[in-house]
Amino acid sequence: MENKKINKIAVLTSGGDAPGMNAAIRAVVRNAAYQNIGCVGVYRGYQGLVEKDFIELDARSVKNIINRGGTFLKSARSKDFRTKEGQEKAYQNLKNENIDALIVIGGDGTFTGASVFSKAFDIPVIGIPGTIDNDIKGTDFTIGYDTALNTVVEAIDKIRDTASSHDRLFLIEVMGRDAGDIALNSGVGAGAEEILIPEEDRGIEHLLESLKKSRKSGKTSSIVVVAEGDQIGQNINKLSEDIQDNLPEYEVKVTVLGHIQRGGSPSCYDRVLASRLGVSAVDALIEGESNVMVGTRQKKIVYVDFDKTIGGKKKLDKELIRVADIVST
Amino acid sequence: MENKKINKIAVLTSGGDAPGMNAAIRAVVRNAAYQNIGCVGVYRGYQGLVEKDFIELDARSVKNIINRGGTFLKSARSKDFRTKEGQEKAYQNLKNENIDALIVIGGDGTFTGASVFSKAFDIPVIGIPGTIDNDIKGTDFTIGYDTALNTVVEAIDKIRDTASSHDRLFLIEVMGRDAGDIALNSGVGAGAEEILIPEEDRGIEHLLESLKKSRKSGKTSSIVVVAEGDQIGQNINKLSEDIQDNLPEYEVKVTVLGHIQRGGSPSCYDRVLASRLGVSAVDALIEGESNVMVGTRQKKIVYVDFDKTIGGKKKLDKELIRVADIVST
Amino acid sequence: MENKKINKIAVLTSGGDAPGMNAAIRAVVRNAAYQNIGCVGVYRGYQGLVEKDFIELDARSVKNIINRGGTFLKSARSKDFRTKEGQEKAYQNLKNENIDALIVIGGDGTFTGASVFSKAFDIPVIGIPGTIDNDIKGTDFTIGYDTALNTVVEAIDKIRDTASSHDRLFLIEVMGRDAGDIALNSGVGAGAEEILIPEEDRGIEHLLESLKKSRKSGKTSSIVVVAEGDQIGQNINKLSEDIQDNLPEYEVKVTVLGHIQRGGSPSCYDRVLASRLGVSAVDALIEGESNVMVGTRQKKIVYVDFDKTIGGKKKLDKELIRVADIVST
Amino acid sequence: MENKKINKIAVLTSGGDAPGMNAAIRAVVRNAAYQNIGCVGVYRGYQGLVEKDFIELDARSVKNIINRGGTFLKSARSKDFRTKEGQEKAYQNLKNENIDALIVIGGDGTFTGASVFSKAFDIPVIGIPGTIDNDIKGTDFTIGYDTALNTVVEAIDKIRDTASSHDRLFLIEVMGRDAGDIALNSGVGAGAEEILIPEEDRGIEHLLESLKKSRKSGKTSSIVVVAEGDQIGQNINKLSEDIQDNLPEYEVKVTVLGHIQRGGSPSCYDRVLASRLGVSAVDALIEGESNVMVGTRQKKIVYVDFDKTIGGKKKLDKELIRVADIVST
Repeated sequence: MENKKINKIAVLTSGGDAPGMNAAIRAVVRNAAYQNIGCVGVYRGYQGLVEKDFIELDARSVKNIINRGGTFLKSARSKDFRTKEGQEKAYQNLKNENIDALIVIGGDGTFTGASVFSKAFDIPVIGIPGTIDNDIKGTDFTIGYDTALNTVVEAIDKIRDTASSHDRLFLIEVMGRDAGDIALNSGVGAGAEEILIPEEDRGIEHLLESLKKSRKSGKTSSIVVVAEGDQIGQNINKLSEDIQDNLPEYEVKVTVLGHIQRGGSPSCYDRVLASRLGVSAVDALIEGESNVMVGTRQKKIVYVDFDKTIGGKKKLDKELIRVADIVST
Repeated sequence: MENKKINKIAVLTSGGDAPGMNAAIRAVVRNAAYQNIGCVGVYRGYQGLVEKDFIELDARSVKNIINRGGTFLKSARSKDFRTKEGQEKAYQNLKNENIDALIVIGGDGTFTGASVFSKAFDIPVIGIPGTIDNDIKGTDFTIGYDTALNTVVEAIDKIRDTASSHDRLFLIEVMGRDAGDIALNSGVGAGAEEILIPEEDRGIEHLLESLKKSRKSGKTSSIVVVAEGDQIGQNINKLSEDIQDNLPEYEVKVTVLGHIQRGGSPSCYDRVLASRLGVSAVDALIEGESNVMVGTRQKKIVYVDFDKTIGGKKKLDKELIRVADIVST
Repeated sequence: MENKKINKIAVLTSGGDAPGMNAAIRAVVRNAAYQNIGCVGVYRGYQGLVEKDFIELDARSVKNIINRGGTFLKSARSKDFRTKEGQEKAYQNLKNENIDALIVIGGDGTFTGASVFSKAFDIPVIGIPGTIDNDIKGTDFTIGYDTALNTVVEAIDKIRDTASSHDRLFLIEVMGRDAGDIALNSGVGAGAEEILIPEEDRGIEHLLESLKKSRKSGKTSSIVVVAEGDQIGQNINKLSEDIQDNLPEYEVKVTVLGHIQRGGSPSCYDRVLASRLGVSAVDALIEGESNVMVGTRQKKIVYVDFDKTIGGKKKLDKELIRVADIVST
Repeated sequence: MENKKINKIAVLTSGGDAPGMNAAIRAVVRNAAYQNIGCVGVYRGYQGLVEKDFIELDARSVKNIINRGGTFLKSARSKDFRTKEGQEKAYQNLKNENIDALIVIGGDGTFTGASVFSKAFDIPVIGIPGTIDNDIKGTDFTIGYDTALNTVVEAIDKIRDTASSHDRLFLIEVMGRDAGDIALNSGVGAGAEEILIPEEDRGIEHLLESLKKSRKSGKTSSIVVVAEGDQIGQNINKLSEDIQDNLPEYEVKVTVLGHIQRGGSPSCYDRVLASRLGVSAVDALIEGESNVMVGTRQKKIVYVDFDKTIGGKKKLDKELIRVADIVST
């Protein structure tokens, strides 16, 4: 792809919403304005691209949104965009508005769609990693992850009040179907006694042994953080019963944190990260990049091919697992 | 009961924990110290009374606890205290420590136990209403209720971010087995479209009608707050399916807020209320009262016979139900 | 004034902003819609009335604002409205838009202006008490007060971390030029050792005596909450020096909380109160009322003549002052 | 220094307190317990070392502190420790208790003292960076910094409610005598129009020009974040007057955030960082290290000589300054 001049771009959010998406949109819009590039917002992700649900955005359009959770451009799944016809329509909608390039904010599903679309129509697309799950390869952090960790830790702090007032054991399910990052970090942060993550299956015997040992060491209440994708934690009610049967001295309770983890005003870290990545995405287009995600590694901005962000598994953070084992003693 | 001089009192927390219980204990301890009355804390509610799990408390013992959720004296159920033998043991434990009177912090179950004990052994007992459910008659507010409302509203604010980003309908279950106070107030506070409470059964048809009307009026996302004791909301997953079948244009999701509602640092209101009631409970003992709860009505301290706090139903707040109907349009 | 049919109303916010004002506007707009009454928002208070800075509002215009601090209609001082000419212009602007009545949200200055205007032009005006200071007679609570208390208490909780880590004495200035409500309630809620309020002048000697006594009793850090209008606290830096000279064993620090007290997402209590009062204000107009504030007393809605809300002093809450003295021992 | 077996260690906190210090102490204590090493806490920093104000700590001693701001070991300045005699006493106190090594948590002043002491008495000392200022070389993050950023951003969010309700310009002073990290990051996070930092002096003319341009572009309210050490921001009241004189259309207000920035429950990031560094500090001692700080670079644990952490200046983050300029347009 040759380095054509960019005159007008479109930006959309896709997949699950994440705190900081608004801050990222704001940074895209303001860098576009700063560089004298036109900017259009697309509502409801790829579906809005197919249906031409567009809105002109200038620097003032995005005021007072940096502190808001969710995404004012909304997000949705799009069956239409998975078809050749849908993509063709989307491309025509962009061309009719003289839009030269696209910035997409979302997770790996979003990038997969972007990659296909960019290659099919030779239109530059840049991705910004926005998902609370931190499960995208090639970037140290995704937008929304830090906020979700704080939300989880604050919720567990509240539950600990009750746990320690009643000598109870709480199983707390947090998000993370494939990645244990939220469970591992929030578990360490909340002072959990045990943390169950999909990347590592120590088995229920190990868990029961460990809880019994805790009890003997003088602990009268316990918090166990469970990633929703963990092998023995997937069926959390069954797990609760198994523990209750084996540890009758505790009263075992289950809490599923659910959707509160996706919302809330973004943390400072997520707002700054979103601002940096939003600015960088526009920069990347101007530099002639396409089919890459802008990410952060070791505090520096990096461009990563979409292909390298998708699939496979992130490495397990063994140092933090060791820390978790030690500080929960 | 004649007005005997009180030289030493005991204080305990019982039933579900509530934010502000620590502030109430602190106020009891400090007014006792102020009036030159000895004070003993009893761990784990009535069970600690039976097992003589006591701790001497002076003004310094309760520093830096006013802002903490839960109860540092812990709470527990006690089968022993329901027996004549258990109560006899409890009484002997108090007598052996020269304790003249008892202050209990909790809900209606706590007061029932207190009433029986006080009458059986002619020992003065004062109750302080501490429960997030606000389901005690004779007091306008119970300790912990205001904090729980804020916790619920903050959680729903987060969920609304996601709801409005995705055009979803969320069913959110909040505490309240018999009383809809939490659901009604948090529902109004969070801007819920519908609120389902046990005191009022409008039926599922009414709910579906109303949601369809909302949708037609231009709403693309909706929050429905459901008290756990509501007739059609009790089985929240079944309700979710019924709505989904009838409103296919929404994506329906369920979140059960659960135990986060009991914890957290108490709100200013709860800390002040707990301080006032804790001070009043000691005053009441000095004034020769027994078998009463100290409560607040119309911003003034009142003494209410235990018998009048228990059983029956609080009146439904019809004005607020009308407000809820109007502001959700 | 005879009971004319109300077809269209205007609503404005005036004076210092307070959390919950948006919730009140929303309730006004939605009750108007519910009653088939037109509704216009006026920007920047009375100044917008003079300059005809109006916006049509329907039920959908006020979505997603219940949780936002400040006022989306903005507030401003208006010199023009203090003149006969300004008021005349304001009245003509209302008449030209066929607006029959006005609802004003603000404090006593707002009500004074409303009262003059209503009498001069025979136009019905209803007031809603919105100010963090809780200094309006005739209502138990004003919108924003509960939120401000929580903001202050959370800030002092943070400062206490530092105070107790360093054995320091902190003087913390909170809002309240004439009324000590914020200082007294937040001081009790935050566990302050001393609280200085304008309604009561115990003198600096009493303060120093009390702090010395605290120190002797084993306290190593202290929080003193000072209302900005307090006699000895008005010059807080001078007070700091006086204390430092007399209590060299403490390190004395000053923090002025300032404008963070006015902002923030409203508490559940303020959102519910604002919803109730907003609905009631429209009801009052329909009932033919004018020149009254809608307020809350003993949990019930009341109408209070503007004249009775302004001037004079609220009574000092002696019970709470006694509680403050006792729980700070 | 040869690799002697470590049997017993001491841990202290020194300098300004920071959120996460308790989490770091907890991790030190628990890794010591895990490795069968004795552990003693020293109260009030180096002063407690001189006065032998010690407490034995085991794994249970540090329960329920991970979520608390401040430091339960307290912190203080020590003149005594600056003298040869004071250091000699401190060393004897350690020897008399058979303490082999010392872990100090604090900032550069803390490390300077540690370095002198370690070299003079041939005792292993490891440092953990704990300060909200993030002004220590050799580590990407210090404990407490992330929490302070969130505290500042939440406070500015509240002030923005008021600013935008009244068309005001707010000057907000944040901590940072030498380092602009807090101002720059919180300024970007809070959506500030201008950010004044000590590392960069653009002069008041540039500031006024920029504010005028903002106003012309349609902004009606503005937030300017000022690091306390900034050249033109040092005298913030003078700066306020200068701006008011030049921009009469704004109402200019000043807020000094002050000590709320040091306190509060630590963020998840700070709790995890503190846990990792606390564990690493004990590991480092076991590995025979001394006179080093344990820090984090690019998400990995590093050991950095004390000499390389002190003095000089951290580099200015030019990328973020550019982002700040762009997103504030």
